[in-house]
Amino acid sequence: MSSATDKICILGSGNWGTTASRILAENVHKIPTIDKTINMYVYEEMVDGKKLTEIINTRHENVKYLPGHKIPDNVVAIPDIVEAVKGATLLIIVTPHQFVEGMLKKIKDHIDTSRTRAISLIKGITIGKEGTATISMLTKEYLGIDVTVLSGANIANEIAAGQFCESTIGYECKQSAHLWKQLFETPTFRLSCVDDVIGVEMCGALKNVIALAAGFVDGLRMGNNTKAAIIRIGLVEMRKIAPYFSSTIKHETFLESCGVGDLITTCYGGRNRRLGEAFVATGKSMETLEKEMLNGQKLQGYSTAGELYQFIKEKNIVEEFPLFVKVYQICYEGADVNALFSGLNVSLQNSI
Amino acid sequence: MSSATDKICILGSGNWGTTASRILAENVHKIPTIDKTINMYVYEEMVDGKKLTEIINTRHENVKYLPGHKIPDNVVAIPDIVEAVKGATLLIIVTPHQFVEGMLKKIKDHIDTSRTRAISLIKGITIGKEGTATISMLTKEYLGIDVTVLSGANIANEIAAGQFCESTIGYECKQSAHLWKQLFETPTFRLSCVDDVIGVEMCGALKNVIALAAGFVDGLRMGNNTKAAIIRIGLVEMRKIAPYFSSTIKHETFLESCGVGDLITTCYGGRNRRLGEAFVATGKSMETLEKEMLNGQKLQGYSTAGELYQFIKEKNIVEEFPLFVKVYQICYEGADVNALFSGLNVSLQNSI
Repeated sequence: MSSATDKICILGSGNWGTTASRILAENVHKIPTIDKTINMYVYEEMVDGKKLTEIINTRHENVKYLPGHKIPDNVVAIPDIVEAVKGATLLIIVTPHQFVEGMLKKIKDHIDTSRTRAISLIKGITIGKEGTATISMLTKEYLGIDVTVLSGANIANEIAAGQFCESTIGYECKQSAHLWKQLFETPTFRLSCVDDVIGVEMCGALKNVIALAAGFVDGLRMGNNTKAAIIRIGLVEMRKIAPYFSSTIKHETFLESCGVGDLITTCYGGRNRRLGEAFVATGKSMETLEKEMLNGQKLQGYSTAGELYQFIKEKNIVEEFPLFVKVYQICYEGADVNALFSGLNVSLQNSI
Repeated sequence: MSSATDKICILGSGNWGTTASRILAENVHKIPTIDKTINMYVYEEMVDGKKLTEIINTRHENVKYLPGHKIPDNVVAIPDIVEAVKGATLLIIVTPHQFVEGMLKKIKDHIDTSRTRAISLIKGITIGKEGTATISMLTKEYLGIDVTVLSGANIANEIAAGQFCESTIGYECKQSAHLWKQLFETPTFRLSCVDDVIGVEMCGALKNVIALAAGFVDGLRMGNNTKAAIIRIGLVEMRKIAPYFSSTIKHETFLESCGVGDLITTCYGGRNRRLGEAFVATGKSMETLEKEMLNGQKLQGYSTAGELYQFIKEKNIVEEFPLFVKVYQICYEGADVNALFSGLNVSLQNSI
């Protein structure tokens, strides 16, 4: 313990945060310079009359968000965020997207920014009039520290079950990438590193819009070919729009797990696909389906589709992105879902 | 009729050939210079006591290979291949892969090579000690004519049903690409053109090897993430191995329908996936499964996996293609199917 110079705090305890805690609690033993006790900030709630933090700290299981999987004893659940980050130099950001900003405000005066770095496991961006804000951008803005991101075809439950999965680390600082890779990689959870933070984050957000379209295809009871076409066109549009957000985004990033891997898994599983399908099958609005099917949570693909369309319109590039535009028109403007397929000749080559 | 300078012959009448005949029989009306009567070479067989050619020419339906879909009257089934190619200047090659060479030998003295061009709709290559032979290469070798290829996420039955699908035209001659696009494209079957014949053909063959691996994942009852990882790694290995076959292959081709699109659809449907799954579930050999499940037909992914491995070994690049190699070892050398997942860190970026 005395030689430890770093300490981990996991900010969030949903199913991904809890899964991450299990991995980190094992891997931390490989790195002498990191304190073996891992703090996990847990938004306190009552489960069957008991506090969730108490359940985690005594039964060593997150019975609400990752039931059936043991959490090692060296993970300590803490309900107070300021208490949780005390002494922490390695922050894992894994709360729901909409809570990040508030959380950063709360912790910013309580961490030693000179020797702290963070990794974000969150998918989702905000595309606003004042520009685009990714989690790494927000974190940098509030904390001024090095931020790495981790994103990919990494549904928490499958990772927790030890199934082979992979993910992508997007980094600015190579040393940080090396450290985070050591901390997160396991024999069945493989990580590749790319020097492209924003590219990795864009992939994680944009793929949700395509997943809505994949859900439409399922709702229309169309076949494998149609779905593959939509996924492929989605991938091409994701790659094509990237430079409008940042000139630093690399083409190769879209062939990593964060790109095509996550896109495929999201278009076959995941809730964006599921609500897309229900949208067609039921004829209900997205807002209604959010309420009915997501228990009041927000559907990321739906809000991103809206923000993305405003961005596309302002840049005057509607013609270049027929699929993104169709998804918007179908979700927000009542366009016929069959219109999804018209004008979708999308290629990276010159047309003939 | 008198102004017609070109005439179409479809060489093959399986479900894709028959589907193509329906498209061509409509689209031919848009191009004045092409004879409206389309010859279709049909390998003669008896169906319920009647000749298949007679059934097609009287009932205008291929009851054996595409039941339930009408074939327009301007398609004429012909059992004699020499008779079928008489006067033809636009050849559609769509027989099973293993019959192409024999067929080319039969027709080579019966076509006017100075004004004939061909398009191949066939997926599958032969990787031998003397080099790699694609259908376009074979056709050029025997006929010495311009050859275009068409390949993509285009399962015939879904196209015949009018579901939205897309495909890729790989061309050498731009004018040919333009003509074939006019002939094959419909409002629901969209085509992009790439200046990369061999790249399009390589995609169509290599994806079958990855589909076996996807089938293994299904046989092991693993989840969406694992499958997405295998598909992604497969795509990267396909792209990485391409330059060893030809320096002209373009990266962008792998993002067309012939690449990632066809790969996805094949890994979720298709018989390579199905046999891969059965291989794990039953423990039977691939040869046995071919006999039991394919009625004696050959499984393309299986033979390609074997040929590809020899190629990889001879080039001394085993380390670079763990997935291709694992599929070979599992199919041919009795390796444990769980070994599929070890050593699969595959990225296009430099490793950290």
